[in-house]
Amino acid sequence: MSHHEVFEAGDIVLQNDITLRDAGVAYKTYGTLNGEGTNAIVYPTRYGGTHVDNEFLIGEGMALDPSKYFIVVPNKFGNGMSSSPSNTPAPFNGPRFPRVTIYDNVIQQHRLVTEVLGVKRIALAVGWSMGALQAYQWACLFPDMVERLAPLAGAARCARHNFVFLEGVKAALTADVAFENGWYEKPPLTGLRAMGRVWAGWALCQTWYRKEMYKSLGYSSLDDFLIAYWEGMFLQREPNDLLAMIDTWQQADLSANDTFDGDFEKALGAITARTYVMPGQTDMYFPPEDGEYEAEHIPNAEFRPIPSLWGHYAGGGKDPTGADTRFIDDSLKELLAT
Amino acid sequence: MSHHEVFEAGDIVLQNDITLRDAGVAYKTYGTLNGEGTNAIVYPTRYGGTHVDNEFLIGEGMALDPSKYFIVVPNKFGNGMSSSPSNTPAPFNGPRFPRVTIYDNVIQQHRLVTEVLGVKRIALAVGWSMGALQAYQWACLFPDMVERLAPLAGAARCARHNFVFLEGVKAALTADVAFENGWYEKPPLTGLRAMGRVWAGWALCQTWYRKEMYKSLGYSSLDDFLIAYWEGMFLQREPNDLLAMIDTWQQADLSANDTFDGDFEKALGAITARTYVMPGQTDMYFPPEDGEYEAEHIPNAEFRPIPSLWGHYAGGGKDPTGADTRFIDDSLKELLAT
Repeated sequence: MSHHEVFEAGDIVLQNDITLRDAGVAYKTYGTLNGEGTNAIVYPTRYGGTHVDNEFLIGEGMALDPSKYFIVVPNKFGNGMSSSPSNTPAPFNGPRFPRVTIYDNVIQQHRLVTEVLGVKRIALAVGWSMGALQAYQWACLFPDMVERLAPLAGAARCARHNFVFLEGVKAALTADVAFENGWYEKPPLTGLRAMGRVWAGWALCQTWYRKEMYKSLGYSSLDDFLIAYWEGMFLQREPNDLLAMIDTWQQADLSANDTFDGDFEKALGAITARTYVMPGQTDMYFPPEDGEYEAEHIPNAEFRPIPSLWGHYAGGGKDPTGADTRFIDDSLKELLAT
Repeated sequence: MSHHEVFEAGDIVLQNDITLRDAGVAYKTYGTLNGEGTNAIVYPTRYGGTHVDNEFLIGEGMALDPSKYFIVVPNKFGNGMSSSPSNTPAPFNGPRFPRVTIYDNVIQQHRLVTEVLGVKRIALAVGWSMGALQAYQWACLFPDMVERLAPLAGAARCARHNFVFLEGVKAALTADVAFENGWYEKPPLTGLRAMGRVWAGWALCQTWYRKEMYKSLGYSSLDDFLIAYWEGMFLQREPNDLLAMIDTWQQADLSANDTFDGDFEKALGAITARTYVMPGQTDMYFPPEDGEYEAEHIPNAEFRPIPSLWGHYAGGGKDPTGADTRFIDDSLKELLAT
């Protein structure tokens, strides 16, 4: 894990009125803030990811160029680096870790960015997948601060179908008796493997599998991919952290706060940032239809789906041809030039 | 369960060289065979379904009119009525029930239809979902006998993505320690519920959930639908039977037999029946792209997707408006008139 800082946020009252004590937001910055505090980019993390997983989109000559911009990558609560079930002391450890929403994340990220880092304006809020949920929330809650928005392979809320798919992966993990309602001493390995197998069908689309595109990632067969990649990935994860992040995801709704009181279209309408809504063209989590609807309700938005056969993974930096990364990078350059 | 007959098929050697002893094919017929034996329709069953689940598409004035046609509905092996893990004596009971393929099913159905029922020609082979897999196999293996073919919401093989989705539902069921590798004395209730929850995301599409179409089925909320319909349905099922049928489904490939030796396009090309390939427009199991490919490789086929937001359920008789049933019935009338 590369070097990072931690914002000690103190005791914070969450949306559900539980206090998360001694909360910590792990983060990493790339580049330098200018004197006016106006060249910042905020780039929150994905499900199960840390700031390291965001780095493929940051680099000299890229849109997210640390020689021009001050790029802040805050780690999501629940990801094992910021406050999470796995690193919070009793009595709020494990399955007693409180519900943390996208809103709760962004409120603390805003404190970090303004109080600690001295940022005045956000040139761009960008994120992939759950990072996109957070980027949306940034632009909606702080329209005077966020100048541009680019949600990648995400949405402004968790759609019902998306909720159902997540119910399935949760059910697979928790069907393992070794999960012990979250009080396991040893990880529930069967449940983690099952969770990986269920997830496999959702992340990549029918065409991707039809074309055996797992071979482009170096997997020798379908079953090799299911075991080596999917089971292998979930075996390394911490079950209660996985579930906390899924809960954050399932509760996601741009308007689920006192300001908008559930009025989703009003929340979208409050975004003043110049916006490129960029879902993956073949994404089964956040299908382009939802992004199109969102773009229609944001005053200054353009609907720009990522052309890709990589399902939800479009924009996640996995395609070895890099076609999706180039498309996104070009789009972000264009957006930042406006 | 309505009255039905059983074809005592004797000891049959399966494709995998295991002998299924005292095999039985439960079936029901509707209407009367004409003197020439040429007015038969064969209409195999779906996953987890019996002949009763097919009856919504049979009726006076419908395409499948028992006053005109002799409609034969054979129950698939594994469905609990034909030979299945749950009704086969030791040592081939439960998880020792042998692998039965779509090919194995159709070979025995052919014996039933010709040897027992005296059918000479099949005016139409039709089926929904796994029934479509069998209908395809009928037309491919017996082109001189099958005059017309209409696979509904199915395909001629199990695509890789479909295989992966089924891996997920299997993993959810078998993650329950109470499954005991199939040797359970009491059903693994947690695993069955998990299986239902995983399945829920696959059967209906994003738009269906977005529009809360479960309300049209009488469910009061999303969670009510997940519990009452999905968990409720799977709690009534027999786990080893479910797994045997999934295995049949996963192995499905029109060309996986000595005649075609894995040459899928050759197997499609062997179908001489006038064919309407009718996938559901929003089906995530058997997406229309696969059906389009198949239609292109069948000499006398038309690609005619079912316009519906009911995902895989298009053509399954669930939509209370009956729009899909009418579309299919009209198409089948047209096909039968040729």
